[in-house]
Amino acid sequence: MTILVVGSVAYDGLETPFGKKERILGGAATHFSASASFFAPVQLVGVVGGDFDEKELDFLKRRGVDLAGLQIQKEGKTFFWKGKYGYDLNEAQTLDTQLNVFAEFNPALPENFRSASHIFLANIDPELQVKVLKQVQKPKLVAMDTMNFWIQGKRKELLNTLRHADCLLVNESEARQLTGEYNLTKAFKKIRSWGPKILVVKQGEYGAMLFADDFVFSAPGYPLEDLKDPTGAGDSFAGGFIGFLAKKNAPLTEENLKHAVVCGSTMASFQVEDFGLERMRTLTKKEIQERFQAFKKLSHFEETLIL
Amino acid sequence: MTILVVGSVAYDGLETPFGKKERILGGAATHFSASASFFAPVQLVGVVGGDFDEKELDFLKRRGVDLAGLQIQKEGKTFFWKGKYGYDLNEAQTLDTQLNVFAEFNPALPENFRSASHIFLANIDPELQVKVLKQVQKPKLVAMDTMNFWIQGKRKELLNTLRHADCLLVNESEARQLTGEYNLTKAFKKIRSWGPKILVVKQGEYGAMLFADDFVFSAPGYPLEDLKDPTGAGDSFAGGFIGFLAKKNAPLTEENLKHAVVCGSTMASFQVEDFGLERMRTLTKKEIQERFQAFKKLSHFEETLIL
Repeated sequence: MTILVVGSVAYDGLETPFGKKERILGGAATHFSASASFFAPVQLVGVVGGDFDEKELDFLKRRGVDLAGLQIQKEGKTFFWKGKYGYDLNEAQTLDTQLNVFAEFNPALPENFRSASHIFLANIDPELQVKVLKQVQKPKLVAMDTMNFWIQGKRKELLNTLRHADCLLVNESEARQLTGEYNLTKAFKKIRSWGPKILVVKQGEYGAMLFADDFVFSAPGYPLEDLKDPTGAGDSFAGGFIGFLAKKNAPLTEENLKHAVVCGSTMASFQVEDFGLERMRTLTKKEIQERFQAFKKLSHFEETLIL
Repeated sequence: MTILVVGSVAYDGLETPFGKKERILGGAATHFSASASFFAPVQLVGVVGGDFDEKELDFLKRRGVDLAGLQIQKEGKTFFWKGKYGYDLNEAQTLDTQLNVFAEFNPALPENFRSASHIFLANIDPELQVKVLKQVQKPKLVAMDTMNFWIQGKRKELLNTLRHADCLLVNESEARQLTGEYNLTKAFKKIRSWGPKILVVKQGEYGAMLFADDFVFSAPGYPLEDLKDPTGAGDSFAGGFIGFLAKKNAPLTEENLKHAVVCGSTMASFQVEDFGLERMRTLTKKEIQERFQAFKKLSHFEETLIL
């Protein structure tokens, strides 16, 4: 199985209580690819400018990520995002967004990308998300992200993209804004009526919840003593979640979806341990497997209650 | 085993997006007792005024709660709290607090209360909490709650009470305010150094976390579609948590403590389904056992991760 991701490859400026970075590699597609590449082959679709140092992606190439779909607009500049976090790392304050080459991005899939089995439409213009879907043949799974900017500004287009998606991955405030429902169970029902049969709500340090027709699953956040930078946690989560499903070519059963959520939470828990993609560069499969087990210890309990 | 609780028996005025109550039975000791009584015999220590309708507690008597420690100050008025919640039911806005008979409360334990095995010091003046501890003989477990008011106003007295406690149950903001640490793992280390070997952090709709020397446990919040009133959820949690440990006379092992947290979460999930103590009046052991199992389905996953 092969995973295709479309989304940003970017430079980020970051400020957290634990450090500051002027300009480091970031972007949703980058974070997703780094994470998913531990599970299955990844094909990346995106765009960068002439200022982009391609060597920055060498570690993704080494991890088998196919960059044939990454356009380089020599005259343009790479997407730049600058954000700041307080001690409550759940909410970023955006200080600067420079769309640059992303403003005119027109995703074009190389021929061998069109048969990808698992698609992740990272957070970009919903019209671009649909353009990508029009170029692929019968994927097994279409998952997508979005954000408040599109929920407000391109609601009609977003609802159109949702009709084609199996799974929506968003954070709590996005789920609420999109549906007008504070209660997440009610929010899922509305989203379900628009198309996606699975809703994953990312809850930052509180973990993640998955809603499906016949069950709900909740995975905790991993209790780290030292978090440095939450940027990319959501995309790392998506990488582990979709990565697991692609690796196993797994049907969307309750057991597989629960397992996928824990893979997502595991990858996100590493992502936040360091700035940018630093942790992903040194991460090993052994560490992933060990933390997956730690999630079991963290959330499982034995015995039946007898009153 | 017998559980002793000291805390408020009160009238509450409540306003949530789902309804309004002018004056209904409430109070930490009341909520705790109702919940714990499903697990083990409960002895209640508190005070009410001449305006209190004792019939309100008939259902607690029927559930075996011993009210011999409830003082009635005929000339005084019962403690009254008025609060309001928005759609985010995690945070109450206090509109009115009338301490009334609680201002001069001096807890005196009936003779047969002094040998209780499990003690819950609900959220009251830490000096009163210590007064209760001085009257009991060698309990197996001392658990306590507190709030921002005492953390700010009686820090020295609170730290003194903590020295005598095995377990502190507080919400996130209280754990942070008490320790000056945002990170809960770090907050636990500080609290540990003051005495309690167990910290339970109540996280509202996100569930609860338990920190001990050699493990951390996280239980999700139960995804209810209809919540009416979160008042008393924390005390219902404590009732299920301590109730389970008392029922089983359980040593504080990892397995027992995890189980106790899920019992706490189970009881809290019922508590919020209706105003005041309404849900507790109709709750059955069968419903409790079923929801306990639902927590298993909600948070357990199978398989080992092979990469």
